[in-house]
Amino acid sequence: MADAPLYVSVIGAGEAGEDVLVDAEAVGRGLARAGAIVVCGGRGGVMEAACRGAVAEGGVTVGLLPDADRAHANPFVSVAVPTGMGELRNGLVARAGDAVIAIGGEFGTLSEIGFALKLGRPVVGLGTWELARGGEPVAAIETVSTPQDAVARALALTRR
Amino acid sequence: MADAPLYVSVIGAGEAGEDVLVDAEAVGRGLARAGAIVVCGGRGGVMEAACRGAVAEGGVTVGLLPDADRAHANPFVSVAVPTGMGELRNGLVARAGDAVIAIGGEFGTLSEIGFALKLGRPVVGLGTWELARGGEPVAAIETVSTPQDAVARALALTRR
Amino acid sequence: MADAPLYVSVIGAGEAGEDVLVDAEAVGRGLARAGAIVVCGGRGGVMEAACRGAVAEGGVTVGLLPDADRAHANPFVSVAVPTGMGELRNGLVARAGDAVIAIGGEFGTLSEIGFALKLGRPVVGLGTWELARGGEPVAAIETVSTPQDAVARALALTRR
Amino acid sequence: MADAPLYVSVIGAGEAGEDVLVDAEAVGRGLARAGAIVVCGGRGGVMEAACRGAVAEGGVTVGLLPDADRAHANPFVSVAVPTGMGELRNGLVARAGDAVIAIGGEFGTLSEIGFALKLGRPVVGLGTWELARGGEPVAAIETVSTPQDAVARALALTRR
Repeated sequence: MADAPLYVSVIGAGEAGEDVLVDAEAVGRGLARAGAIVVCGGRGGVMEAACRGAVAEGGVTVGLLPDADRAHANPFVSVAVPTGMGELRNGLVARAGDAVIAIGGEFGTLSEIGFALKLGRPVVGLGTWELARGGEPVAAIETVSTPQDAVARALALTRR
Repeated sequence: MADAPLYVSVIGAGEAGEDVLVDAEAVGRGLARAGAIVVCGGRGGVMEAACRGAVAEGGVTVGLLPDADRAHANPFVSVAVPTGMGELRNGLVARAGDAVIAIGGEFGTLSEIGFALKLGRPVVGLGTWELARGGEPVAAIETVSTPQDAVARALALTRR
Repeated sequence: MADAPLYVSVIGAGEAGEDVLVDAEAVGRGLARAGAIVVCGGRGGVMEAACRGAVAEGGVTVGLLPDADRAHANPFVSVAVPTGMGELRNGLVARAGDAVIAIGGEFGTLSEIGFALKLGRPVVGLGTWELARGGEPVAAIETVSTPQDAVARALALTRR
Repeated sequence: MADAPLYVSVIGAGEAGEDVLVDAEAVGRGLARAGAIVVCGGRGGVMEAACRGAVAEGGVTVGLLPDADRAHANPFVSVAVPTGMGELRNGLVARAGDAVIAIGGEFGTLSEIGFALKLGRPVVGLGTWELARGGEPVAAIETVSTPQDAVARALALTRR
């Protein structure tokens, strides 16, 4: 067997603006070029953009769908797993990555960030949630400002 | 059948300081006095304190445990459900409440807040996470400063 | 704290004939009289009948619902937990019982029997599935012919 | 995009006799040759044998693990998803297949058969459980006697 591949979960909203989608596609491309498997929630928006990027580079993409069947997977998912668990599948997405890259994101993304941090997965954030408690920032998410840095940091933190 | 009871999920860390635990117990007491069923993760810390308070007022408490059996439930859980799902049970806790009260909290609590917001459950926060995006606060959590206000706001938002 | 209560899961189809429902109600009554908490999938048919029987005797009933909210719980569920996990919640029902009583039943019941046996929970069957492998019966389910015996055996096996 | 691939779940025990393992490997080979993705629970025994066969033919294998991380995946799993859900992941395995092939099997396999039938997935059985109710066989599982037939029937039923 070859070395086990890295898995990186890309999380973000099912609907997102063009800038965010461009970033997500670049992240997917970068991860695939590095040989990482892209894991996501399998639907549209950031998830689809990341998968499209990864597939364009010959990468493998895994979609862990909320749905009971795989009809709603975006067309760039290589391996579609219909969980039938609804939003609870967010926890599966967080767990399935050796690292997590959050791009933009709404409340579902927040749940995945919380899960990933709870599970000790490194989380890299690109324009995503900022956390604080008692008025003090909590630096749990490694903030980056480009897709390239997101990929580089996620891989570096995973291999550590 | 009588009116269906309200369910309020109380979320917070399994280990917490004395001030936080006093607040959690007061929240449990207040919810039970109002006839609400207290849902939590069934373990120690904030979960145990909220259950202790609720049981002291004759209330019902539900613990959705991460464990495969119910041996690790705190002694104030009336109904213990061992999910065997590990941290994924956080999503069940968020879903099972008509409203959610977050008291203090670590990353697991953050995942539950994200889930609850994603599911459209009102979230009341007492000394918990503060959220922002792009440098701007996101007022998704209704912030209160006393356990009494936490209970009052959770009930009001639930009945709305 | 008083002694921890026993939990017995009652499994069976959401639609069933009158004889099966009469048996399920009697099982619910018997469990409640013995102080056991009745766990079920929270919907109609066998689940509702068992809950109705238990509540008539002042018992506590727990419904672990497939649905994302608790609107579809039968009216005799004391504690309704909407899992949003669809049929996957069958595994939660099997796990949540210290013993399992299967009454009649379709394929969902079969999945719960399989889960319960896998988890080492005693399974008592009243007119339910019969198992064989290689043409030889597999006596994994303790077969009884009355609701009274179902309750008695479930409690005896649980306390063992 | 090319035609969506078929997914076939192969279920069976984590420990099995040599004959059963030979059959499982042949099933994996046959599915891969037909271009189907093999889904399984990702551990040893029947799961490992099916994956080994599929990989030998250049196929893709998906392992939905009970574990919280992917260290326990068998070495022939192409895409390993650690669910952290313990035995509850059996429901995910059943759901993820367009058809299910059961080879031998213990109680976990029985739970997967029940799930698959409940979800309307065709189930093909090779030396697996036999079901009856009220003394009458229930022909819910399509019984075959060779791995080749198992593959052929699973594909035929899926495409129907």
